[in-house]
Amino acid sequence: MSGLRRSERIVRLTQTLLEQPYRLISLTDMAEKLNSAKSSLSEDLAIIREVLLKEGIGTLETQAGAAGGVRYIPGVPDQQVSDFLREMSRLLADPDRILPGGYLYVSDILGRPDVLDKAGRIFAHIFSMSGADYVLTVETKGIPLAVSAARYLHLPTVVVRRDHRVTEGSAVSINYVSGSRRIQTMSLSRRSLPERSRVLIIDDFMKAGGTAKAMCDLMKEFKAEVVGVGVFMSTSEPTNKMLEDYVALTVLSHVDEITREIRVEPGTFKISQKGEL
Amino acid sequence: MSGLRRSERIVRLTQTLLEQPYRLISLTDMAEKLNSAKSSLSEDLAIIREVLLKEGIGTLETQAGAAGGVRYIPGVPDQQVSDFLREMSRLLADPDRILPGGYLYVSDILGRPDVLDKAGRIFAHIFSMSGADYVLTVETKGIPLAVSAARYLHLPTVVVRRDHRVTEGSAVSINYVSGSRRIQTMSLSRRSLPERSRVLIIDDFMKAGGTAKAMCDLMKEFKAEVVGVGVFMSTSEPTNKMLEDYVALTVLSHVDEITREIRVEPGTFKISQKGEL
Repeated sequence: MSGLRRSERIVRLTQTLLEQPYRLISLTDMAEKLNSAKSSLSEDLAIIREVLLKEGIGTLETQAGAAGGVRYIPGVPDQQVSDFLREMSRLLADPDRILPGGYLYVSDILGRPDVLDKAGRIFAHIFSMSGADYVLTVETKGIPLAVSAARYLHLPTVVVRRDHRVTEGSAVSINYVSGSRRIQTMSLSRRSLPERSRVLIIDDFMKAGGTAKAMCDLMKEFKAEVVGVGVFMSTSEPTNKMLEDYVALTVLSHVDEITREIRVEPGTFKISQKGEL
Repeated sequence: MSGLRRSERIVRLTQTLLEQPYRLISLTDMAEKLNSAKSSLSEDLAIIREVLLKEGIGTLETQAGAAGGVRYIPGVPDQQVSDFLREMSRLLADPDRILPGGYLYVSDILGRPDVLDKAGRIFAHIFSMSGADYVLTVETKGIPLAVSAARYLHLPTVVVRRDHRVTEGSAVSINYVSGSRRIQTMSLSRRSLPERSRVLIIDDFMKAGGTAKAMCDLMKEFKAEVVGVGVFMSTSEPTNKMLEDYVALTVLSHVDEITREIRVEPGTFKISQKGEL
């Protein structure tokens, strides 16, 4: 019977922790809920931590003290990261994706629940030490990725709008020149981001970096610090982007509308252990 | 030692199942990965299922046969649903949310990871028997909710655009009259949705239902069937909405810009067991 009880506790603990990444779970509360001694829970948590570490799928972080507890820090094994990036590169390089003007159709990929989940998890892993308070994106196609990364970092998502909406209250707007050389506007509601926040920017695509640079400029208006920039796909050209520090999961190096050739490679980046890339 | 091994297996199985809702996990693959007999796994799964059912957080569904396996169907206990709806109603009724024109500021709530996760889970629970193939939403504020529901249903998210973008390929556009009585356009890329799909519509807000109705009309162009409509908040007025069958998590019955009074109540709906609301 005691074996069974341990098994049940482990299901509950694993479920509670894994479904709430980065959220501090009070051991006292859990002991009460599971009607168990804290010492038993500590043994259970040691088993869970060991399995997570061995599989490379994260770890448990314990915080001592009265307000203490344990939280799940999600990880992704290096092999899974490289497998995923190779698979995405392969999918993106399908000639059927080429649209008039040399654009690539990617909305289907960025709508897939497994892709969003894995990409979000990888972004969360890469930026786990960034100290971000918010995940920032700009409408529209980056939103699902941002939400997924924010889920695994347990951070709020803030969405910059292309136009100013009455349902957002007073906003700060800036103009910028996009990749297509048009003057565009982006705006963010004043109340959506407290001043001096630490912000992680997640978006679907980067070419010259005009949009990401504009988001960085917009952040200055909020006295916010940009602690990381991650995109699903960047282009290799221009090599000289408008911002230097960013992580691209995949890199598009060639699209030819006539020959219907596409080349996409996995991005090269280090997964930070100390908040530096 | 055998007790420890069972514990480890249970952590791995719980993690694999719970992090991939609705995805069929092959028992043969799992037995190989965990280097265990299928009979041991069956015992482990029985324990996991029992805990999930007891806690009301879902169940495991077993599919027999060569292509068989087990999948996690997420659930939410009734008490958690009503607690969440009451908490959301309380948050939404904060007078500080009133914007000029009587609009409510809700972007902060719809960006919170815990809110998105729980709301998505509740939508997935409500529409678990809908047989949807896709979750559909319209940019911008409904996207995070749709992505979260789609995660728990393991379905792709499809985003209707307010304007037609070159990066989406050829599209179907329709005009409609919005709540503000302006003529608006929405468009959806042809390739984003196969014909004859079954579609679950998720959005943040519904007043007269013009936008949701327009999405239903747009779906006719794709020969798609709308199998459910869920919104985070609806208004009690007009009582006569442009569509009848929808689920609203919360209902706004009163906003007064002068007296700064707001009333929001939890929505009333049945959680379907048979795909009917």
